[in-house]
Amino acid sequence: MTILIRGGTVVNATGAAPADVLVDGERIAALLAPGFPLQADETIDATGKYVIPGGIDAHTHMEMPFGGTSSADDFASGTTAAAWGGTTTIIDFAVQAKGTSLLSTLDRWHQKADGRCAIDYGFHMIVSDVNDTSLKEMESCVDAGVNTFKMFMAYPGVFYATDGEILRAMQKARETGSTIMMHAENGIAIDELVAQALAQGRTEPVEHGLTRPPELEGEATSRAIALAKVTGSPLYVVHLSAAQALDAVARARDTGQNVFAETCPQYLYLSLEDLARPDFEGSKYVASPPLRPREHQSELWRGLRTNDLSVVSTDHCPFCFKDQKELGRGDFSKIPNGIPGVEHRIDLLHQGVVRGEISLARWVEICSTTPARMFGLHPRKGVVVPGADADLVVYDPAATQVISAATHHMDVDYSAYEGMEITGRVDTVLSRGRVVVDASGFRGSTGHGRFLARELNQYLV
Amino acid sequence: MTILIRGGTVVNATGAAPADVLVDGERIAALLAPGFPLQADETIDATGKYVIPGGIDAHTHMEMPFGGTSSADDFASGTTAAAWGGTTTIIDFAVQAKGTSLLSTLDRWHQKADGRCAIDYGFHMIVSDVNDTSLKEMESCVDAGVNTFKMFMAYPGVFYATDGEILRAMQKARETGSTIMMHAENGIAIDELVAQALAQGRTEPVEHGLTRPPELEGEATSRAIALAKVTGSPLYVVHLSAAQALDAVARARDTGQNVFAETCPQYLYLSLEDLARPDFEGSKYVASPPLRPREHQSELWRGLRTNDLSVVSTDHCPFCFKDQKELGRGDFSKIPNGIPGVEHRIDLLHQGVVRGEISLARWVEICSTTPARMFGLHPRKGVVVPGADADLVVYDPAATQVISAATHHMDVDYSAYEGMEITGRVDTVLSRGRVVVDASGFRGSTGHGRFLARELNQYLV
Amino acid sequence: MTILIRGGTVVNATGAAPADVLVDGERIAALLAPGFPLQADETIDATGKYVIPGGIDAHTHMEMPFGGTSSADDFASGTTAAAWGGTTTIIDFAVQAKGTSLLSTLDRWHQKADGRCAIDYGFHMIVSDVNDTSLKEMESCVDAGVNTFKMFMAYPGVFYATDGEILRAMQKARETGSTIMMHAENGIAIDELVAQALAQGRTEPVEHGLTRPPELEGEATSRAIALAKVTGSPLYVVHLSAAQALDAVARARDTGQNVFAETCPQYLYLSLEDLARPDFEGSKYVASPPLRPREHQSELWRGLRTNDLSVVSTDHCPFCFKDQKELGRGDFSKIPNGIPGVEHRIDLLHQGVVRGEISLARWVEICSTTPARMFGLHPRKGVVVPGADADLVVYDPAATQVISAATHHMDVDYSAYEGMEITGRVDTVLSRGRVVVDASGFRGSTGHGRFLARELNQYLV
Amino acid sequence: MTILIRGGTVVNATGAAPADVLVDGERIAALLAPGFPLQADETIDATGKYVIPGGIDAHTHMEMPFGGTSSADDFASGTTAAAWGGTTTIIDFAVQAKGTSLLSTLDRWHQKADGRCAIDYGFHMIVSDVNDTSLKEMESCVDAGVNTFKMFMAYPGVFYATDGEILRAMQKARETGSTIMMHAENGIAIDELVAQALAQGRTEPVEHGLTRPPELEGEATSRAIALAKVTGSPLYVVHLSAAQALDAVARARDTGQNVFAETCPQYLYLSLEDLARPDFEGSKYVASPPLRPREHQSELWRGLRTNDLSVVSTDHCPFCFKDQKELGRGDFSKIPNGIPGVEHRIDLLHQGVVRGEISLARWVEICSTTPARMFGLHPRKGVVVPGADADLVVYDPAATQVISAATHHMDVDYSAYEGMEITGRVDTVLSRGRVVVDASGFRGSTGHGRFLARELNQYLV
Repeated sequence: MTILIRGGTVVNATGAAPADVLVDGERIAALLAPGFPLQADETIDATGKYVIPGGIDAHTHMEMPFGGTSSADDFASGTTAAAWGGTTTIIDFAVQAKGTSLLSTLDRWHQKADGRCAIDYGFHMIVSDVNDTSLKEMESCVDAGVNTFKMFMAYPGVFYATDGEILRAMQKARETGSTIMMHAENGIAIDELVAQALAQGRTEPVEHGLTRPPELEGEATSRAIALAKVTGSPLYVVHLSAAQALDAVARARDTGQNVFAETCPQYLYLSLEDLARPDFEGSKYVASPPLRPREHQSELWRGLRTNDLSVVSTDHCPFCFKDQKELGRGDFSKIPNGIPGVEHRIDLLHQGVVRGEISLARWVEICSTTPARMFGLHPRKGVVVPGADADLVVYDPAATQVISAATHHMDVDYSAYEGMEITGRVDTVLSRGRVVVDASGFRGSTGHGRFLARELNQYLV
Repeated sequence: MTILIRGGTVVNATGAAPADVLVDGERIAALLAPGFPLQADETIDATGKYVIPGGIDAHTHMEMPFGGTSSADDFASGTTAAAWGGTTTIIDFAVQAKGTSLLSTLDRWHQKADGRCAIDYGFHMIVSDVNDTSLKEMESCVDAGVNTFKMFMAYPGVFYATDGEILRAMQKARETGSTIMMHAENGIAIDELVAQALAQGRTEPVEHGLTRPPELEGEATSRAIALAKVTGSPLYVVHLSAAQALDAVARARDTGQNVFAETCPQYLYLSLEDLARPDFEGSKYVASPPLRPREHQSELWRGLRTNDLSVVSTDHCPFCFKDQKELGRGDFSKIPNGIPGVEHRIDLLHQGVVRGEISLARWVEICSTTPARMFGLHPRKGVVVPGADADLVVYDPAATQVISAATHHMDVDYSAYEGMEITGRVDTVLSRGRVVVDASGFRGSTGHGRFLARELNQYLV
Repeated sequence: MTILIRGGTVVNATGAAPADVLVDGERIAALLAPGFPLQADETIDATGKYVIPGGIDAHTHMEMPFGGTSSADDFASGTTAAAWGGTTTIIDFAVQAKGTSLLSTLDRWHQKADGRCAIDYGFHMIVSDVNDTSLKEMESCVDAGVNTFKMFMAYPGVFYATDGEILRAMQKARETGSTIMMHAENGIAIDELVAQALAQGRTEPVEHGLTRPPELEGEATSRAIALAKVTGSPLYVVHLSAAQALDAVARARDTGQNVFAETCPQYLYLSLEDLARPDFEGSKYVASPPLRPREHQSELWRGLRTNDLSVVSTDHCPFCFKDQKELGRGDFSKIPNGIPGVEHRIDLLHQGVVRGEISLARWVEICSTTPARMFGLHPRKGVVVPGADADLVVYDPAATQVISAATHHMDVDYSAYEGMEITGRVDTVLSRGRVVVDASGFRGSTGHGRFLARELNQYLV
Repeated sequence: MTILIRGGTVVNATGAAPADVLVDGERIAALLAPGFPLQADETIDATGKYVIPGGIDAHTHMEMPFGGTSSADDFASGTTAAAWGGTTTIIDFAVQAKGTSLLSTLDRWHQKADGRCAIDYGFHMIVSDVNDTSLKEMESCVDAGVNTFKMFMAYPGVFYATDGEILRAMQKARETGSTIMMHAENGIAIDELVAQALAQGRTEPVEHGLTRPPELEGEATSRAIALAKVTGSPLYVVHLSAAQALDAVARARDTGQNVFAETCPQYLYLSLEDLARPDFEGSKYVASPPLRPREHQSELWRGLRTNDLSVVSTDHCPFCFKDQKELGRGDFSKIPNGIPGVEHRIDLLHQGVVRGEISLARWVEICSTTPARMFGLHPRKGVVVPGADADLVVYDPAATQVISAATHHMDVDYSAYEGMEITGRVDTVLSRGRVVVDASGFRGSTGHGRFLARELNQYLV
């Protein structure tokens, strides 16, 4: 079957130009000068709208186990919400439980996701144990299309890796061409501050932010960069939130080191003030790294412009306020960490275009093209070119919407952006050639999405 | 007439993918998945080759008056040589003579170029006089599609502008959205060093380099950045050659200031050692800024990777060794400044791909896409998308060649790269849909090229 | 005659310790453990007080010609006021008038000062003309004990030197071991901004500040540093006022370059808000560089702690409000530039000790020891050691005072610090062994002060 | 008894001046203008020589337990050797064994040292256990004159402290005004590299250097600075050896943070090449951090000039080649870490004066005055002023010597500087008024030296 998307402005990472897009089956068959005389089985009118490559959210946590509970979205609900928001690919994290193998972990995650996703998906691997076996297994993971390995400098006793373990994993990454992703907060020092706060009776959600000072994110980021330098490993810093960390990344990038970083919408729009909301409302904003004082926001927007921040992902990790976030009443350290967001990334970043923070081309680049190249999905994803998967979004830049838990499609009982007005809205979404969202609602199906075996990072020279 | 370029790998700034390209008349009509069933009047077989957007050389000086003589290529020979090398657009500099108007200057340059170019062309304007009239004329230039104004911190008494004049021009640039291009060397201090060298009997070509220390390029670059900061003007630093200048640009870019820079192939491959060649051979390498000690080269390649250097142009300004360069025997300061290069930029940069300095996508980006966006030609130029001008190069990455004056097409009696072996060669070149170079030789015509009225810099937010 | 200063705490740049000081004639004869059994002709009780080396104000302008008028203090009144404030040495600027020689200038300044000063004095030389003759004369100046040459990047048409002239003077400085002092503001760009302001009818004193943005001080400072780097000349940046300039100095100093800088009390305590005072009161605060927005102050205090600012001088250049400052009513550019201050430097910096900005030892260092070493007066001045000139101040750290034109001794009709309360006050002042100020008032005499032929900068390795 | 040191040039940190020094009993009684008419019981002729404050070596390890053996010098031999070399104060490290208390450790060290030292001495405390008890004990240590607490980011399982432990100790340091001293190498990562080297059969001494890359010293230094920033604690980085670490310190100091660093003579004069000497000779040069590639040396000298390195100490920790260093044959990780040096610091640094690396005043400052102020011994030590302890060295700048194990006085069977020619030599040494070394040899006695209860760091504002 063929579909012709007519009359729109195709926006790629290098700029915008009017063009029609012909979809044939699952792929883009042709980009055509406007009005090129071709017929198709179906036509979508994109007049006055953008046609962009589907969003790629490189950082999600669907049904992730966390302290006895589990993140609220499963792969079905989470990927459906993503599709609603114009995201047609997620890369989720398979989480190695200590004492288990990477490959069995990967199997488990395939079992969770396969046949349940509304859009395509890939996996990163969280490495919790570093030993000869797991290092060897990293090679098999790479062969299986999972070549990005996340480690934690935070969460001692849970995910925390020592600098020696990080060093070993980075050596293997260098050897295999894969990339280490890093949660860069000095968890050892932070845990001390957390213990002190609790011992002093400071138990409110805002303490989550106060016990994780931005200097300790800057420190860990610098340390990860130094370890990457020593080993020659590529490094991708996840959910960068603090100006200090950005400064470390910018300095490393100026030297040409293979260091990359992402930030998340919550760090661009929300702040420590939200964590300080009364009546335990602050718990809705508990994630790690924590929301920062407001002055960090403009630095992060600048980082997006200078490309010291290359990607915006969501770190989507939803926990309901009721029964989940509430586990931390009286002890902020027990609040499940995470903020829902997979549905609104494209909109929130388009708002950055509206506000003049980023250009239209840059919007597409940080939401889709760069993640595709960074995570080895290009040219299958991330660009509107013939031969690519027909993951396409028709986006209406003039429409307006108000974000609300009442209307969103994520399976969580609150929105961190409740009441926020956005200019721009997803109109139609195609996933591998199939219209999954349009004016009539969700037309896709869980099970449509396929696993993506990924190539290596394309930014390494 | 339609042409189908079949079987190649289309390389855009975001990456490579196999695709066929349909040209209809002067434009790209369609990008097609490989094997898409369409017929065309003519077919070009690109199997095993790249299909890239035609090169854009944003810095050339054809038949430029210089101290009683004139650069050796006129618009006919220069643009023909450019075409041979896969460059399908040049932006040349109209040079205001002191006491004349900008608009009459633009007219003069149109007279020189119109009807004589083998490929499309645009103009930058060199502003030699800053006064109320010329500032007002800048607005008319912008309206006429010339919105980039070059100034000189070097060459006192000739092109030199005072910091006050630069400030005024930058204020006007800010007001009009145009961009100031800067030759950043401290000419006042340099002229003192030159006078001292001559007074001491140091007259050889190498003294050209020794009297223009890299610190004085770094200084001027910093100063231009400060003036741009004060006025809010975009700044584009031309022909950056020194690590010190790169450092200044990198620091400014880290802050998000609208500062951009280009370098040239000669600074990537040649060095002060060439200037020191005996028997006046060094004169062939006299340009300003001068070739630098070899250790600057790796810094410049790094700058290309980090995007602190965004563009590679040639500063093509050929003077024959005989009769022209020889004017400076016995007085290096009289050697006409300039190195020929318009023909070999694409090849020399592809050599950077071969050597692992830059990626394939980056090659296209710095040679074509970024100049197109920087100088307001996108999406008409710089990308392979439907609707764009069919400026296309079929490039054979496996072919080899040896650069030599004996075989080049520039109208100059030497090559700065004589004997250099290159992997990669231009196979076929289309300019606005017309095959101008192929295996049979040059098939274009001077007069084919059209003037390009340019939009504003697309990198400003 | 001998004097024994008993019971005080001697404060040197390395720290404080109780000690008695024996003065014999003009020199310090001995430092003695407290209570050491020695008799003297006269005894001064310093119990509870500091005994510090007399202040050295390395930047004053007594009876300086300026636009048809002259600064309000002559050498007699100015040095008397200095003595009142605990300063026992000034280094004033001899000002070469264009077209005159350096040596005749020096003669003129000797005529003005010799026999009229209450304290010792030296000269810096302002070089207004750079040519073969004046460069040669620099050597004679060095022989005559004047080895610091001030140049201006501001004031085109008056003191302004081109970068080529600066380069030549710096080469001579390098050759002779002398130091170039620099007024670092980009006067060429500033004059353009001034002309624009006046053309727009912006004539109030605050425009003096607004037309001299801090970026243009930062720029000029960077440029002076680059020229010093190229030539190998030591550089001393006078009256540094802007964070941008401090940043440039700090970066150069980190590399070990011989770059030094001073700031002045007015930049530590006053701000652009003072320049904006109504009723032309702002004119009292007109000096160049201008007072800066308040946020620069904390950066300057930090610079004093990190030694990126090594000296505090006053740039004492008093003009009366009446008849002098008033020359600029209706045209801020005609307001004589300068703020009175020679009398209160020691007190204002002691206030920095009281506020915890600097340590006691650092107070002595920046007010006396470093200027002595920087300007070749050590060990004759700047330290309390035997053999040194008995320039000593007994300072009462507990006394309080209020600064006011009603009580100060400078010959000017206003105080920039009117009403400011200070903790600490000069008690007794000795100049070369003679008590010139004590509880009974001024006991010195104009004519007591002698010219100081100075050695070279002692910070160069 | 009184001693008059006549005819010398007293060199203090602020500069040199001729003066006589009168010693009365244990103290300096007076500094006198040359020829001041005073008699004394004994006279020392210092004509043509310097009189400097006795050296303070703030980093020694006498009879330190290390892996079953003990450093070769005990307090008697070590302090005697120090005296021979012009050092009149050492600050040695009391080493808390895990599971013991700080106060009992201090007692043990007093038992070792008291009554056995030839010169005065103080203690730093190495904190191996961080817990409520030891943190509380830090307060008692401060009261006992031991207010500098050393921690290790290296040596896991031995001295290694976690970032959480460092944070807690720093909080206590901030609270008590004391200073944390840091061995800044990332020992966790290093131990991994060491294990890998051994597993690969790389066992030679040079591997000690190769497995401790300078980036990991830079990293740990940055981390310590970040933790100090978060806690507000003063930080003193010991034995800084790598340019990367210096860069981190310089950046922190530019911001005004209370960060200080020392280097050691071995890092200024020796290099990785020494570690690579054949026949296990390299073992003589094994210390941590390791000797670095030669290019780091000039950076360290620069750091001494810029005051980013404030102190030179020796890290004197001698192990004999025979029987001790030899423990590591076949396994470099078993070589006892340490290089002897307490005897030659003053000479080696004077050699820096001879070579033009530092000035005479700076020599005294980094060897004596700054350590005195940094470690709370000023004005009792570190300066030549009345009232200070008569710790004085008459130094002959013209004498020459050759360093050799055959002639040195340290109780160790080799010299790291064997055969090195030095210009300058200690002539006479006084410790608290007693001549302990002169032409006749060692005239002091072990037991003369007294414990110094120290005040707090005097550089904090």
